[in-house]
Amino acid sequence: MSKELRIAMLGCGFMGRTHSNAWLQVNHFFPREHKPVLKGCYGRQEDLKKLKDFQAKWGYESLETDWRKLVERDDIDLVDVCTPNFMHKDCVIAAAEAGKIVVCEKPMAMNSAEAQQMVDAVEKAGVANMVSFNYRRVPAISLFKQLVDEGRVGRPFHYRAVYNQDYTIGQDVPQGGMSLWRLDSKVAGSGVTGDLLAHSIDTAEWINGPIKRVVAHAETFIKERKHADTGKVEKVGIDDACMFLAIFENGSLGTFESTRYARGRKNYSTMEMNGERGGLYFDLEDPHILQFFRYADPETGKKIEDHLTGWQRIHVTNFEHPYMKNWWVPGCTIGYEHTFIHGFADFLASLEGGPAFQPNMRTAMRTQQVCERVLESAKQGAWIDI
Amino acid sequence: MSKELRIAMLGCGFMGRTHSNAWLQVNHFFPREHKPVLKGCYGRQEDLKKLKDFQAKWGYESLETDWRKLVERDDIDLVDVCTPNFMHKDCVIAAAEAGKIVVCEKPMAMNSAEAQQMVDAVEKAGVANMVSFNYRRVPAISLFKQLVDEGRVGRPFHYRAVYNQDYTIGQDVPQGGMSLWRLDSKVAGSGVTGDLLAHSIDTAEWINGPIKRVVAHAETFIKERKHADTGKVEKVGIDDACMFLAIFENGSLGTFESTRYARGRKNYSTMEMNGERGGLYFDLEDPHILQFFRYADPETGKKIEDHLTGWQRIHVTNFEHPYMKNWWVPGCTIGYEHTFIHGFADFLASLEGGPAFQPNMRTAMRTQQVCERVLESAKQGAWIDI
Amino acid sequence: MSKELRIAMLGCGFMGRTHSNAWLQVNHFFPREHKPVLKGCYGRQEDLKKLKDFQAKWGYESLETDWRKLVERDDIDLVDVCTPNFMHKDCVIAAAEAGKIVVCEKPMAMNSAEAQQMVDAVEKAGVANMVSFNYRRVPAISLFKQLVDEGRVGRPFHYRAVYNQDYTIGQDVPQGGMSLWRLDSKVAGSGVTGDLLAHSIDTAEWINGPIKRVVAHAETFIKERKHADTGKVEKVGIDDACMFLAIFENGSLGTFESTRYARGRKNYSTMEMNGERGGLYFDLEDPHILQFFRYADPETGKKIEDHLTGWQRIHVTNFEHPYMKNWWVPGCTIGYEHTFIHGFADFLASLEGGPAFQPNMRTAMRTQQVCERVLESAKQGAWIDI
Amino acid sequence: MSKELRIAMLGCGFMGRTHSNAWLQVNHFFPREHKPVLKGCYGRQEDLKKLKDFQAKWGYESLETDWRKLVERDDIDLVDVCTPNFMHKDCVIAAAEAGKIVVCEKPMAMNSAEAQQMVDAVEKAGVANMVSFNYRRVPAISLFKQLVDEGRVGRPFHYRAVYNQDYTIGQDVPQGGMSLWRLDSKVAGSGVTGDLLAHSIDTAEWINGPIKRVVAHAETFIKERKHADTGKVEKVGIDDACMFLAIFENGSLGTFESTRYARGRKNYSTMEMNGERGGLYFDLEDPHILQFFRYADPETGKKIEDHLTGWQRIHVTNFEHPYMKNWWVPGCTIGYEHTFIHGFADFLASLEGGPAFQPNMRTAMRTQQVCERVLESAKQGAWIDI
Repeated sequence: MSKELRIAMLGCGFMGRTHSNAWLQVNHFFPREHKPVLKGCYGRQEDLKKLKDFQAKWGYESLETDWRKLVERDDIDLVDVCTPNFMHKDCVIAAAEAGKIVVCEKPMAMNSAEAQQMVDAVEKAGVANMVSFNYRRVPAISLFKQLVDEGRVGRPFHYRAVYNQDYTIGQDVPQGGMSLWRLDSKVAGSGVTGDLLAHSIDTAEWINGPIKRVVAHAETFIKERKHADTGKVEKVGIDDACMFLAIFENGSLGTFESTRYARGRKNYSTMEMNGERGGLYFDLEDPHILQFFRYADPETGKKIEDHLTGWQRIHVTNFEHPYMKNWWVPGCTIGYEHTFIHGFADFLASLEGGPAFQPNMRTAMRTQQVCERVLESAKQGAWIDI
Repeated sequence: MSKELRIAMLGCGFMGRTHSNAWLQVNHFFPREHKPVLKGCYGRQEDLKKLKDFQAKWGYESLETDWRKLVERDDIDLVDVCTPNFMHKDCVIAAAEAGKIVVCEKPMAMNSAEAQQMVDAVEKAGVANMVSFNYRRVPAISLFKQLVDEGRVGRPFHYRAVYNQDYTIGQDVPQGGMSLWRLDSKVAGSGVTGDLLAHSIDTAEWINGPIKRVVAHAETFIKERKHADTGKVEKVGIDDACMFLAIFENGSLGTFESTRYARGRKNYSTMEMNGERGGLYFDLEDPHILQFFRYADPETGKKIEDHLTGWQRIHVTNFEHPYMKNWWVPGCTIGYEHTFIHGFADFLASLEGGPAFQPNMRTAMRTQQVCERVLESAKQGAWIDI
Repeated sequence: MSKELRIAMLGCGFMGRTHSNAWLQVNHFFPREHKPVLKGCYGRQEDLKKLKDFQAKWGYESLETDWRKLVERDDIDLVDVCTPNFMHKDCVIAAAEAGKIVVCEKPMAMNSAEAQQMVDAVEKAGVANMVSFNYRRVPAISLFKQLVDEGRVGRPFHYRAVYNQDYTIGQDVPQGGMSLWRLDSKVAGSGVTGDLLAHSIDTAEWINGPIKRVVAHAETFIKERKHADTGKVEKVGIDDACMFLAIFENGSLGTFESTRYARGRKNYSTMEMNGERGGLYFDLEDPHILQFFRYADPETGKKIEDHLTGWQRIHVTNFEHPYMKNWWVPGCTIGYEHTFIHGFADFLASLEGGPAFQPNMRTAMRTQQVCERVLESAKQGAWIDI
Repeated sequence: MSKELRIAMLGCGFMGRTHSNAWLQVNHFFPREHKPVLKGCYGRQEDLKKLKDFQAKWGYESLETDWRKLVERDDIDLVDVCTPNFMHKDCVIAAAEAGKIVVCEKPMAMNSAEAQQMVDAVEKAGVANMVSFNYRRVPAISLFKQLVDEGRVGRPFHYRAVYNQDYTIGQDVPQGGMSLWRLDSKVAGSGVTGDLLAHSIDTAEWINGPIKRVVAHAETFIKERKHADTGKVEKVGIDDACMFLAIFENGSLGTFESTRYARGRKNYSTMEMNGERGGLYFDLEDPHILQFFRYADPETGKKIEDHLTGWQRIHVTNFEHPYMKNWWVPGCTIGYEHTFIHGFADFLASLEGGPAFQPNMRTAMRTQQVCERVLESAKQGAWIDI
């Protein structure tokens, strides 16, 4: 019952690395019928040396400097799109039209118009597809969702998400180029909104349902930066920070914020939910921990004894926790790259008759739309409906 | 150099208790020339038994059930207003007109129009005055301010404040009456905005300067409650939760939120600031701790070695920390009531030629105005200038 | 039902201050029939100025520079011994012989022979007596004991205690004199063993029952120090650090350690207990927190669901927690001095027909004996029975 | 400059898994000349099915059920010994005699006599060798060592290590068999001492130098258990818990403890060091964090300002931290299996002219000896020299 799954990797940067690793690792820990084979990888002609190193390190059988050629090859089953954001649309559509399974990094597109075209393409082609919002599959975040679904939070009152980093503070950080394309609006589409808030929004709507209305503010603290390629000082087009208030359809209130100017925060993606029966809190800098306040039991509604209530620090490494029985033993943590492995494990399972995979392109398009409405609200300076 | 300071206490509830204790304790730890004497206390005729117990416990020499009579007595130097909010205005104005020193609990008034009248009265009378925003004087919050003033945060990018509690969740909590008047809009003026956000705003503007613009949303989760006095089910007039985005005049961004519906949070008042050189974080549930991220030194701008950076948990109990050399020894914590003692210690010092006391009524009026604009923004559903 | 309790305070140093404050505060928060009156205080003739300041600050009606005179005065009901350790024995015995109620700071005596004489004296005189092991009455430690008694730990396997500080590191710290008598073995009896481990042992035996056997090691890191009074360099007689292994009578294992050379630890007194059904952890630097791991319920033995287990951070400020309903509201912390107030509150209650007070002199003598056996084991380099 | 390194894996259990993964991953993140090839794996005939699954999952080219045959094959360069402890000696000696590079899991042997034979064999054969004390290479532990070496702790006073777990509590846990051989003294040699304390001792001596004297106590809480293979109730021969006091040669004091009976602790391996200039603390349940108290700078001896001292939570994910620039980006954590990859990365580097690898068999023999002396002290009930 074993079957080769021949992968074409588009992109040989940071995300190319995380995905290549995940394809190689997935069957070591999550046995699946599909056996990924790293068939070919694409990089730009001008990055050829880098591409060759990438090929050698991960063992791709071939390389291409024309992505369309790679996508259309007969010996490819799945196209994995890890290019900079501005290429996502074309790559995904071409892959779909070639009848390939499509995996795409987030954010899915430069804007929701692009996202719509991509959804149309994959749905028309009827190809399986996923967008890699990897953080859903941090075991503690999966457990967050599970506890909400078990009724342990109860009627929700509040949801909060923050995603803060500090790596672009400083006038002398350039924009653009190979490693800082995330600061170049022409390549990235937006700043923190697409890069970081997209994660927060994907998780929030997964856990707490659709957002109905928002009011936002976005800011660019450093207004001009030298471009890494040209050396010219140019206006900065991306948002360095973005914050918004939200009303969810279930009546709960939300606050969201993201910045790359929070000195001391490295990958500080937190989410908190407060409900009638309990509370939950997560911080990606301590990814193995879920904090849980248990106030009343979901079945009986019975309150915990008052002298025993407190926030519990669940060390999410028990065999009973999501994904953890496939790794080591209780007390042993896993890290960042494992979230990608979980994503591929679930995606392969869905190809083999398991539960439908989420988020697919249609779901990711919704996140793209929310991001766009958030930036629109910031521009208008007004509340707007999603 | 010792001088009696004869106190009239208006109110015999929770705040009457914290203030009485602070008047008795202040000279045990902060030697001042003024020696408070608990001369008289006021409570309503219908609360006479409670008032008598209060008088006996704290050693007030006399009691009154007519507050005006007490305020106007010749043997009173200072009037301390600890009544429910709706009485603040009349009490303060009468005290000022009688030439008394005035202390007032926060929030100062039901609205900013009242606040203006109160400021006019105390300034016209030329009487010393203070409003008890006690949390400024948690040693760790005082240290927060000190580190900002020392340049350890540098150019500020972000300021965040949350003040969450959970004690009014549940349909069966009544509004009004002796102990839950904070839920009755006719007595309290507003809900969390005046009760909790007022603290957050006072501290924020003290530390990070004036707020320029806001957009807010306020919510009442439980729409109707039984009134504790009448037993009648009535519409709830207060805000259970309020959140807003802010732009400070210095260009930094702010998020603020307060609720009484955050299950598991008891007195969770947090503030965080991120700047070019460092970060600070405080949580009132661990009031003896200030978290500090040191990135670069203020004098030299020199970066800390990269392998040594991290959030520092400063145990604010050293002799070198604000207020702490007057208490015990390093490692020994103090608690909630000490913030009131610090307030009175500083206020007495200001009467004796020390630094001018803050916040006085004029400053507190500003906070009142911000609160009002926040609620106005929530009502209009739009950004507004302060 | 109100009755004066006329107090004689022996000592005007740090402990004189904590006790004076507690006598004045106790009835403000814990209503008792006995109303302490600060009748007289004692200090040495050479400290007269300091004594007068002390008297003035706390409002003692009189002062004495001859402690025997004060102890024997007819207008004294209770003698509170807060002198340096070497005087405890004589003061306590004289007070008992004069028929006074006796309160004594810890450690009770210089050695267990002295302690025996003191117990004989108070028991012969039949006077009420207490030794102020104040930390039993940190609410979180009281709750620790309560949870053990409720069966939430179950069969105990391990007990650990650490009491570390860092204030005597450095060759230039003198020994002796007014403020550093704790470093002078002729005044203090021992170093960390009597000063800090005595607390750990008192709590350990209270919670986990008697220690049966120990093996210890004690160390003096700085061998010679200048004496603060004479300026002469002298051999240091106290233990800077002491660590021991213990076997409890209930079969559980213990580790104990104390030092004044743990850089960064201020008042780091931790205790941990692991049993079949649960675990508990406490750290005096976060005194409002008790950590609790709930594994199985005491009544049913039923396990908590495996995906929900984790160490709970109980914020010990609920009305349901020991002592807390007498203070403020949930979420508001108390501090160091409150432990003394709790001690006096319980002691006064015991005089008024409440539960017998612990620890009294007999119990404290046991702790003194354990300390002595620990130091004896360190000297012998061998396991010894208690 | 690329060279095949043909691996023979002895054992297909938990450690076989961690090592196989590490051999496959090492060159993806730490480019080395040696390219591991998984040539053959060994398992017992009776475990053939398990062995075949293992072979398939990790891609071993062949399998053997006679380990000697595998060890002696010409197409093998390196023998990796991951069998139960009782087989280590024979496997290592055979591999050395066959001239193979030898890797061995810890604890190295059943006792120090065996260890001596093994050291003799590898040294006589002159083969490169390593023992896999993987925890040295948790980045935060490597950083711990680095900071000590940089003089940031200064003169050491105290070292503490705890290694607690809870997975064998309960009368019904069997001993022996495939998965619980660690509870069978005939297979494991000892209980927590060899399994857990061996790690603590290895790290302690690496960081703080040799231990000179110890006094220990060991305990078996559950005296009899059913054997998993035979079903017969047998006396338990291993230590469930072991604690000891230590004196290091540098004059600092040590406490060590390990147990499998600490309810709520999963992989709670902590180490703390206190010195004149600073303090360090690590806990393996939060493996990405090193806590650092900075008191004085090593070069200048200058104290940090008193109002700024505090324990720093270093998030050990910066590019400047040990091993981390080879993984992802700051803020992204790694997990348990990475420590094995680091070990192989360093071992391969040592084969290619890099720094000599530690710990090798000689160093591991020392740890074996300390473990043995600890158990000897527990048996004798007396202090003994190492």
